[in-house]
Amino acid sequence: MSDFANTPSPPYYAVIFTSEQTGNDQGYADMATQIRKLAKQQEGFLGMESARDKLGITVSYWKDLASIKKWKLNTEHLIAQHKGQTAWYKQYKTRICLVERDYEFK
Amino acid sequence: MSDFANTPSPPYYAVIFTSEQTGNDQGYADMATQIRKLAKQQEGFLGMESARDKLGITVSYWKDLASIKKWKLNTEHLIAQHKGQTAWYKQYKTRICLVERDYEFK
Repeated sequence: MSDFANTPSPPYYAVIFTSEQTGNDQGYADMATQIRKLAKQQEGFLGMESARDKLGITVSYWKDLASIKKWKLNTEHLIAQHKGQTAWYKQYKTRICLVERDYEFK
Repeated sequence: MSDFANTPSPPYYAVIFTSEQTGNDQGYADMATQIRKLAKQQEGFLGMESARDKLGITVSYWKDLASIKKWKLNTEHLIAQHKGQTAWYKQYKTRICLVERDYEFK
């Protein structure tokens, strides 16, 4: 996940997921790959950007709130969320946002 | 910048700044430190979260659009933006977002 998300003109939605890992990363990389692959297949998915050093920040972009809600309740995603809470993440915060404007420099 | 932002209950605003660096980082660290310090002093500033590996993602949180606009036009910030475009950043994208909901795990 090293590319810029090629999002459409606003409005659209962003989910900002900020996390701190426990240090136990057993199974994490495989699950992360699988979950990203699955997210991309969801209706309303527009893109994803991710970076990690001490904190991890992953921003996924979505067409609307309905798409985000559906993805949150996706069975495989729920399994990953549970594993995240019991093993990988010490702390995380999720913010659901309406992107009102964007601009870029290239 | 390794801590979670201690933001209030929504609604508030987020500015998602996604960047790719050129590899020329002369003067970057000092300017980044200075700009973060300055941002924290602005009216309406609520917090900031940052991570970088290949991509850099910095999310700053603000009380309202007026605070964001004022910060965007701050003189020292404008100088940093210009230096960013001419030296440090190959590409960046900025998204202005209304945070509608948030939840956390600790």
